[in-house]
Amino acid sequence: MSGETESAEEEWRTIEEQKRLLRIRMGKIRHKVAVISGKGGVGKSTITVNLAIFFAMNNYKVGILDADIHGPSIPKMLGLSGSRLEVGPPGIFPAVGPFDIRVVSMNFLLPDENTPVIWCGPLKMTAIRQFLSEIVWGELDLLLIDLPPGTGDEPLSVAQLLPEMDGVIIVTIPSEVSQIVVKKAVNFAKTLGLPIIGVIENMSGFICPNCGARVDIFQSGGGEKIADEMDIPFLGKIPIDQKICENSDKGKPFIAENKYSPASKAFMEIAKKILDFLNQRGDRVS
Amino acid sequence: MSGETESAEEEWRTIEEQKRLLRIRMGKIRHKVAVISGKGGVGKSTITVNLAIFFAMNNYKVGILDADIHGPSIPKMLGLSGSRLEVGPPGIFPAVGPFDIRVVSMNFLLPDENTPVIWCGPLKMTAIRQFLSEIVWGELDLLLIDLPPGTGDEPLSVAQLLPEMDGVIIVTIPSEVSQIVVKKAVNFAKTLGLPIIGVIENMSGFICPNCGARVDIFQSGGGEKIADEMDIPFLGKIPIDQKICENSDKGKPFIAENKYSPASKAFMEIAKKILDFLNQRGDRVS
Repeated sequence: MSGETESAEEEWRTIEEQKRLLRIRMGKIRHKVAVISGKGGVGKSTITVNLAIFFAMNNYKVGILDADIHGPSIPKMLGLSGSRLEVGPPGIFPAVGPFDIRVVSMNFLLPDENTPVIWCGPLKMTAIRQFLSEIVWGELDLLLIDLPPGTGDEPLSVAQLLPEMDGVIIVTIPSEVSQIVVKKAVNFAKTLGLPIIGVIENMSGFICPNCGARVDIFQSGGGEKIADEMDIPFLGKIPIDQKICENSDKGKPFIAENKYSPASKAFMEIAKKILDFLNQRGDRVS
Repeated sequence: MSGETESAEEEWRTIEEQKRLLRIRMGKIRHKVAVISGKGGVGKSTITVNLAIFFAMNNYKVGILDADIHGPSIPKMLGLSGSRLEVGPPGIFPAVGPFDIRVVSMNFLLPDENTPVIWCGPLKMTAIRQFLSEIVWGELDLLLIDLPPGTGDEPLSVAQLLPEMDGVIIVTIPSEVSQIVVKKAVNFAKTLGLPIIGVIENMSGFICPNCGARVDIFQSGGGEKIADEMDIPFLGKIPIDQKICENSDKGKPFIAENKYSPASKAFMEIAKKILDFLNQRGDRVS
């Protein structure tokens, strides 16, 4: 019983120490933005990566926390498969991707990328706390946090650990089925008092590269509808482009490789709106 | 302290009673199959619904447990938005969808479908246990369980609560980014000793309805590659068809409305392979 008490006390001390570290480490990061969506497979990671690239190409110091413990996609998309985190005296260092983007992902800690993380909620909270407190992120202008689908342990942990978060970006595809689930994410953010930067409609229409016909594979207009109905800003629509998937698979960031495509232009316009939001919050991104 | 002990004892008694009920209720269901995928948005719910329709159209008694607590899509896809569960003396009754499919979803319990379920892991385990034990499913030939993305609380709960499960169907899209995450789901099933019925490659190529050109929007061949590399059966490819999304949004099951489309034929061939798997397990589906 005494042993149990001691270990409980020790655990408590570790958590307090992590909280102290978290305040120090997160204090060096000017802006923190999470990318959420009740729904899976709407392109959260793709959007996180391409926004990060946009900011980094414009000389901002950017970090990405891949908080999708079960299904991390960021390393592959940034050509960082197989990377490991390096450990030095002050703590653990993020992997470094293109344009000097600092990246932390569960996949960097696994024996191989096919290993599943069969964890229940409390363990995931612990991992996210460690990612935020024990990683030496250094001075950053922007930390983007890519969250898994749902309104469970991971987004809840991030919201609790980072009360100073600048805001969340909400991603949807146009379909009505998606709208229902994504509206839950909007209400999740509202319930927790997280500022909502706006909603992005991804996979919005497909232009056949052969004949130029437009096909709304996943319907259309769902993002604007959510923004309208829930009184939140609409950030823009990103069309389907098979090169987005191709580039992700190759670990090459789409907007850096296809600067003049309609999808890249859409990404850039959205990124500028996000920048405006952050600048209006006072502490200017240099 | 005595109050705490009593309530702990009470809770334990409730769990024991639920386990007893679970054995009785699940004993009336001949086959249980879960649809999983490490990755979100690959079409688990669409596939669950269309497989259910196929079996129901062939006179099987079918149930669907929508075990995606945060992002339930099944009610909308089956035209059951706004349905409630009815309670009678023996317990709670599932909602009844097209072709007499019995459906249970978290959305039937919420004040409205936009309400987020901000729950951590243990609460989700409790909800799933209740869905399996306290719902009067009745005699069924097949219960399909639609699981959320990831390898966390929900799939773990289902695996632990249903050790007699016939097997799991694994869904992916072709892309390499998806393959990495879906391989984790395969290893999850292997680690827990769940039989793997096979892998389905969804969103496999798009035929432009205007000019007939084929575009591999999400790459191609990823499902076969997973099956090959991980030594599991490959069940088939389902092409992208904008009607699938349109029908889901309207609550009309795609394969019932578009019997002769290539995607419907793919669904049906896959369903037959699943039927073969279940029949080979001995207890013949009548």
